[in-house]
Amino acid sequence: MGSTILPDLATEILVPLAAVVGMAFALLQYVFVSKIKMSPEEVTGKNGGPTDYLIEEEEGLNDHNVVAKCAEIQNAISEGATSFLFTEYKYVTMFMGVFAVVIFLFLGSVEGFSTKPQPCTYNKDKYCKPALATAIFSTISFLLGAVTSLISGFLGMKIATYANARTTLEARKGVGKAFIVAFRSGAVMGFLLAANGLLVLYIAINLFKIYYGDDWEGLFEAITGYGLGGSSMALFGRVGGGIYTKAADVGADLVGKVERNIPEDDPRNPAVIADNVGDNVGDIAGMGSDLFGSYAESSCAALVVASISSFGIDHDLTGMMFPLLISSMGIIVCLITTLFATDFFEIKEVESIEPGLKNQLIISTVLMTVGIAIVSWVALPSSFTIFNFGVQKTVKNWELFFCVAVGLWAGLVIGFITEYYTSNAYSPVQDVADSCRTGAATNVIFGLALGYKSVIIPIFAIAVSIFVSFSLAAMYGIAVSALGMLSTIATGLAIDAYGPISDNAGGIAEMAGMSHRIRERTDALDSAGNTTAAIGKGFAIGSAALVSLALFGAFVSRAAITTVDVLTPKVFIGLIVGAMLPYWFSAMTMKSVGRAALEMVEEVRRQFNTIPGLMEGTAKPDYATCVKISTDASIKEMMPPGALVILTPLIVGFFFGVETLSGVLAGSLVSGVQVAISASNTGGAWDNAKKYIEAGASEHARTLGPKGSDPHKAAVIGDTIGDPLKDTSGPSLNILIKLMAVESLVFAPFFATHGGILFKYL
Amino acid sequence: MGSTILPDLATEILVPLAAVVGMAFALLQYVFVSKIKMSPEEVTGKNGGPTDYLIEEEEGLNDHNVVAKCAEIQNAISEGATSFLFTEYKYVTMFMGVFAVVIFLFLGSVEGFSTKPQPCTYNKDKYCKPALATAIFSTISFLLGAVTSLISGFLGMKIATYANARTTLEARKGVGKAFIVAFRSGAVMGFLLAANGLLVLYIAINLFKIYYGDDWEGLFEAITGYGLGGSSMALFGRVGGGIYTKAADVGADLVGKVERNIPEDDPRNPAVIADNVGDNVGDIAGMGSDLFGSYAESSCAALVVASISSFGIDHDLTGMMFPLLISSMGIIVCLITTLFATDFFEIKEVESIEPGLKNQLIISTVLMTVGIAIVSWVALPSSFTIFNFGVQKTVKNWELFFCVAVGLWAGLVIGFITEYYTSNAYSPVQDVADSCRTGAATNVIFGLALGYKSVIIPIFAIAVSIFVSFSLAAMYGIAVSALGMLSTIATGLAIDAYGPISDNAGGIAEMAGMSHRIRERTDALDSAGNTTAAIGKGFAIGSAALVSLALFGAFVSRAAITTVDVLTPKVFIGLIVGAMLPYWFSAMTMKSVGRAALEMVEEVRRQFNTIPGLMEGTAKPDYATCVKISTDASIKEMMPPGALVILTPLIVGFFFGVETLSGVLAGSLVSGVQVAISASNTGGAWDNAKKYIEAGASEHARTLGPKGSDPHKAAVIGDTIGDPLKDTSGPSLNILIKLMAVESLVFAPFFATHGGILFKYL
Repeated sequence: MGSTILPDLATEILVPLAAVVGMAFALLQYVFVSKIKMSPEEVTGKNGGPTDYLIEEEEGLNDHNVVAKCAEIQNAISEGATSFLFTEYKYVTMFMGVFAVVIFLFLGSVEGFSTKPQPCTYNKDKYCKPALATAIFSTISFLLGAVTSLISGFLGMKIATYANARTTLEARKGVGKAFIVAFRSGAVMGFLLAANGLLVLYIAINLFKIYYGDDWEGLFEAITGYGLGGSSMALFGRVGGGIYTKAADVGADLVGKVERNIPEDDPRNPAVIADNVGDNVGDIAGMGSDLFGSYAESSCAALVVASISSFGIDHDLTGMMFPLLISSMGIIVCLITTLFATDFFEIKEVESIEPGLKNQLIISTVLMTVGIAIVSWVALPSSFTIFNFGVQKTVKNWELFFCVAVGLWAGLVIGFITEYYTSNAYSPVQDVADSCRTGAATNVIFGLALGYKSVIIPIFAIAVSIFVSFSLAAMYGIAVSALGMLSTIATGLAIDAYGPISDNAGGIAEMAGMSHRIRERTDALDSAGNTTAAIGKGFAIGSAALVSLALFGAFVSRAAITTVDVLTPKVFIGLIVGAMLPYWFSAMTMKSVGRAALEMVEEVRRQFNTIPGLMEGTAKPDYATCVKISTDASIKEMMPPGALVILTPLIVGFFFGVETLSGVLAGSLVSGVQVAISASNTGGAWDNAKKYIEAGASEHARTLGPKGSDPHKAAVIGDTIGDPLKDTSGPSLNILIKLMAVESLVFAPFFATHGGILFKYL
Repeated sequence: MGSTILPDLATEILVPLAAVVGMAFALLQYVFVSKIKMSPEEVTGKNGGPTDYLIEEEEGLNDHNVVAKCAEIQNAISEGATSFLFTEYKYVTMFMGVFAVVIFLFLGSVEGFSTKPQPCTYNKDKYCKPALATAIFSTISFLLGAVTSLISGFLGMKIATYANARTTLEARKGVGKAFIVAFRSGAVMGFLLAANGLLVLYIAINLFKIYYGDDWEGLFEAITGYGLGGSSMALFGRVGGGIYTKAADVGADLVGKVERNIPEDDPRNPAVIADNVGDNVGDIAGMGSDLFGSYAESSCAALVVASISSFGIDHDLTGMMFPLLISSMGIIVCLITTLFATDFFEIKEVESIEPGLKNQLIISTVLMTVGIAIVSWVALPSSFTIFNFGVQKTVKNWELFFCVAVGLWAGLVIGFITEYYTSNAYSPVQDVADSCRTGAATNVIFGLALGYKSVIIPIFAIAVSIFVSFSLAAMYGIAVSALGMLSTIATGLAIDAYGPISDNAGGIAEMAGMSHRIRERTDALDSAGNTTAAIGKGFAIGSAALVSLALFGAFVSRAAITTVDVLTPKVFIGLIVGAMLPYWFSAMTMKSVGRAALEMVEEVRRQFNTIPGLMEGTAKPDYATCVKISTDASIKEMMPPGALVILTPLIVGFFFGVETLSGVLAGSLVSGVQVAISASNTGGAWDNAKKYIEAGASEHARTLGPKGSDPHKAAVIGDTIGDPLKDTSGPSLNILIKLMAVESLVFAPFFATHGGILFKYL
């Protein structure tokens, strides 16, 4: 099969090196951000001077009160977020403990907890490590994945709450300065997560290898637990965080904006701190653990297929590590890309923020294409075989290049289409805004239609990636295609985290009573952030679709099924029930947000009615109670949807067997991706339609406004409806389809042996 | 394989006899309805007298003006509906002509228009009629199906517009009298359609047999064109009618209720006639042709599979005609069921209307279960074989009984679940109504969540039917399961058509300026009709899912595919793109309604602004222009979604081949059914939540009302959003999934021979 240009030793050095470089870069960005002091004394000396025309000096730069106020609000947000995450982690830890035991028991029982070596699954002539070892190491890697995801989410939240007030303070000096702070902080999160995920995976593989030796089949089967751990954590991060953020947001808006007619982020609103906390726990920690999960899962799916392909059979270490090398290259490419935003070019005016962020995507994609070519050239033999449902398929290195590249570029296409449908610079959102003339009903009808329509091109992009990579390199092709889409994850996360940080910065400016100009600047940052958030969701769902398919393929291989024939009753009922699950899940999460928001409304109303002087601004609201309501509600409400996702594969696999489970996975995948994309984009479009009317930047927009006009009120209703769609149920569906697939993969040996008892005894 | 108890001659007599009895019964009901004269002279003599306590004598019974006014409005509605249908038919006829040519050319080209006999597809030892004959007879049966559907829809609309004003007039005498008129008229439609569909199919089979002789394989392959014709017509009926009715409804509400604050159906509203016309062309003609299409398709799917099973191979006529015998039995059962509503029991108060209608469903289902048992016993050999993707599977007659019965009862379950989620007698709709307290946004969030949730049990019901019937009798089982669900179609359509007739009756009462009491009575009828309409939609989509699967199975058999493996790139991309099509289609139809409604809004506003005295009621609005706007808009707007449905199978089959097409069919089926159910139920729930607040029948409801309160305004917004969901995009999706499947089946010989050119040449 030929050998690789890159020696194995170089691979062993390059992967951890790239991870360490990524971490160092994150630290460097952090150091830059931390130079902005939150104490007024320091600020006085920091003046960009007249050479930089972006720095329009603002009155109040040396106002001690403002800085102190900002620091105080930042503390409140940070404390609220930390307290929520710790409460969440308490419950999640209990769940993880139970689930770890389940994994151990189920997988251990496959061969009756025997400690004797057994014939390998794919290479029957050889002996592999006992199933008990797989049970133990799967459990360990599951816990590793969960902890890595937890740390990534937590650190992301920490840096975001560290950066928000600093962005506000820098906004006093100009929009360019503020942009750099928010962007650098996003980069800290992006690089930490990418590097951390890679490093932990690399170390785990090397430690496991001490026991497994050359039983790579067993080794990489056990490693799949890493993906399951990451995704389980992401489930609670996304769902819990999603419910938290939208309960607070919807609750705050319903009383504040609609009933009391006070602006967004007004400090008199008791739910305002909870709302800002929500941005951090939902959009930052939730999104971070979601993408970390995708990254871990696609790596695991690729590794498990590679282990039973010629890479694994021939013990070709460099070829085997191809997925990790792609990710390593991704970190380096993203590092260079980041410099384009922070050092090579300068954001000189508001209009160049959004193009600046979009350029990040284009630059990283173009550079990464070269990077993939290099890795494919040096790290792959010119020809090798890939396991393809029972047979080995011969693949060339340039074919694998195309698999990775098609995923990468499909991600870019999805990103731009998402932007087209959710940015108010284009006609779709402007049409939705225009429909507000005839009221909220037409706004909702047009918004829903927009969301449905926005599904078309992303699905074609995903279909093309699947067809190309599937045809060229079977399920391994799909897995590396997903990795290709995720290879620029550091940049993707950076521009994604940038949004909530800017949003918070605006909130802090409002609450600290800073001048109108500051708020305008942070609003400009936030508006660009809205679009990049939508792009990030597009990436997340696109990669989730590819990842799930790769995991599904790996599951089918592991469960020793050779065909999943729709024309058998077992599979078809799985398919139609699977296609229903995203609806069931969305019903739960939407209702949860609705219920939690109503609780919040009651509390906010109660405070306005019972605290004298609150509306006049002479008394302070009780922020902590609102934070507690959001926390409690989200913890309580995340249980049923979480149970649905976790239990479905177990119940279906155990009672109905692997064929029906295959149907469920395929059905939920093809249906969930549509619901997720349409929900995210509908919500994003409504949000930006409202912002379009508020900003009044064009002749057309001004005929719909100003704030408080009837079309604006209709737009606010759309925005509120869109909140749970775009930030709770839509993005949570990624987890639904990924987690069910990876869970099936991990439990595949158990289902293949003991599953389907209902059909066995009927 | 044994013989049947029922002799062939008896079958030959019983089937047409049942059809003729059904028609005679429809005629009888019509005679009863026609006894209510629309001229005042006659009315004076017709007094139910004091013996019947339901007949509360009403002032104005002899008011000449009122009767004349009603007759005038009825004429306007009837003329509007007729004019729309004729315009629609003009375009549809052109389309049908072109499509007939396409069918002929495509199917004729399979064997190069050769007139020589050729080896049969399944029995290679025998010679069958040339492919050219199949092309000719498929084209003929296509046209027959289209014309039958057209006539069914047209007659239904005629009787509905004939009955609406008569219901209004009878409402003066009491709610019981009015109920009977509306229900009898619905029965005319139901029985005409069921009997007509059966008779034409029976005659076509017998005429075709003259040419085909004992080549049953060719004969029943040609007959599938009947289903395609029925469904093509239904496409335009559902989509065109759906856009018409909702453009008028939404347009009328947006200006009338929201801007001008005048009640629904107020004669001052220029769009009011168009709105009432819409009920007839959308809910009556559209629904009728939809269900006719389902009936024709499931019969054709069953027949085509039977023709290559032992029934066809052994030329067992009675066994072969089993699907038609089930439908014949259905007509007799529905006839008896109808007597329960019209003769055996009496509706004595408003509260017993809804139970009365629901009892119709229960009675017909129970009786039909016995009916199915009888038919399965006398018309089937005790054991026979069914073609199952290449092999013959042995099936017992009692197994086929279970297949039909499970479909029938699944229909009932779907009906009742739909009722639970859309009737305001239960907590789901009441919760939605309650959420209106916090405004339109929470109403929409809760409504969407309700729709998603309402999918769960219907999908399980469909999955169980599929599993049982698929396991017992393969694709034939699915087809007869669908027939089971549709066997009580006459009753289903009767209670379904009853709704729009009552709705129109209320509109006429309002427009004719009749007293408040009359309007209250028609409102009570209408409210029950809302729920039965939702149940009807549940049936329609449930049966569509089964029918599509049966057609899909028949297509796969005909295209000589033995497995549809999700784990091949060709199939998977079909699956994911297929799952996207319902979204694309819904985006088009929703946007169409939105656009057409905005046009209507402009016109209504123009009339209010330019016609002096219109608001004061001293001048008459220009109804005709509004009717014309709805007509033109719906004709124009139905083209793109129609093209999507018609062209997709042709393009996919021709360029990508039968495997990808299989994926598309499976994907659109499992995804479309979810979108359709959730859209219909969300819309139904919003409508009834609004009605719940308006009626104020409970303590809870009164805290939300009255009309014009903030919660009521929020409920009206929800209702308006629900209009296109429940009456346009939701029900149209039935057609999407059915039509693509039947079209694929008809073109299967062509695709199998010449399809997939893209993969052939790549």
